[in-house]
Amino acid sequence: MSPQRERILKAAAALFAREGYHGAGMARLEQEVGLKRGALYHHIGNKESLLYEISRTQLEHMVGISTRIAAEAPDEAACLRLMARALLRNIADHRVEWTVHYRDFNALTGERLRHVLELRDRYAEIWQRVYASGAARGLFQPAEPRVAVLGILGMFNYSYLWIEGDGRLDTDRIADLYCDIFLRGVLLAPHPPPPPDEE
Amino acid sequence: MSPQRERILKAAAALFAREGYHGAGMARLEQEVGLKRGALYHHIGNKESLLYEISRTQLEHMVGISTRIAAEAPDEAACLRLMARALLRNIADHRVEWTVHYRDFNALTGERLRHVLELRDRYAEIWQRVYASGAARGLFQPAEPRVAVLGILGMFNYSYLWIEGDGRLDTDRIADLYCDIFLRGVLLAPHPPPPPDEE
Repeated sequence: MSPQRERILKAAAALFAREGYHGAGMARLEQEVGLKRGALYHHIGNKESLLYEISRTQLEHMVGISTRIAAEAPDEAACLRLMARALLRNIADHRVEWTVHYRDFNALTGERLRHVLELRDRYAEIWQRVYASGAARGLFQPAEPRVAVLGILGMFNYSYLWIEGDGRLDTDRIADLYCDIFLRGVLLAPHPPPPPDEE
Repeated sequence: MSPQRERILKAAAALFAREGYHGAGMARLEQEVGLKRGALYHHIGNKESLLYEISRTQLEHMVGISTRIAAEAPDEAACLRLMARALLRNIADHRVEWTVHYRDFNALTGERLRHVLELRDRYAEIWQRVYASGAARGLFQPAEPRVAVLGILGMFNYSYLWIEGDGRLDTDRIADLYCDIFLRGVLLAPHPPPPPDEE
């Protein structure tokens, strides 16, 4: 992403998170990024494109990371732990963008709304496949993988309302605590220790 | 609550959930409830009062129910299970109101914003007190009760995005599943079966 584009998206996310998408004035955004409307829209498109790019960027990033983790993790429990750390890090690092997403994704229309919801589903499906694979191997309790995964995703996703982005140690510690609880809750045998991190 | 007032709040919640608080036109609400602006505001106040009443009503209801459950439940695990069922029932029954809350509570100002955030804190504190009491009695693992409770609240609260309000059986089943996972994850001894429901 070009630095100019990144700077515009960051400012737009901060403005939308603060005032809501519908409430946010574009004149204010022009002021904050120091560009006139024409230059602004040259870089991004229109106001709805800004909202779309804010959600799309984070969701595609998370789908990419998790696809890679799922391909490389030694087993399903380790995979859930690594995906959990990656998710909580991202929410802490991009709390503003996730606030905008959860607050106003419904303000998107047509193809943009469809794509953002599809990305959210694709992300949840990665978790569901890992969970279902663990259940099929007799590691996790087999009941209702979709509902179980929506539960653990809720533990993490709800954190955009309270997480403080003050460092990896904290978010990793919280991610590990939630995975300890969740895995102890669903594992059919005693749960293994956290895997070494990949970063 | 008077039937007229209840009808106005219900229509306002549906409108705000659909179009966002800032995006929702009051002319549309007048049309939908069949009242002119003056009559509308006579019943509720102004547009921000509508937003405030939508959140306040559900939050006060949940604080009230949970305070009662916490006073009457036989033990901490049973208490968490009953509070969980009550919460998921309420989210399924009032998904529209919770959508408005999470989407636009930030659009509230001054005393109204302060009061809504205080109610949300008071509700979480009821859960935290129950959890801390269980930890003090050696039932639950003692690590980080606040973070643990934010996790289980996340499992439930995130459901406003996906829960279908199609009957008690379903929401109770999901609440029980999440409590099974959470309690198995935090209990220091094997977890007891679900208690009989109080309703």
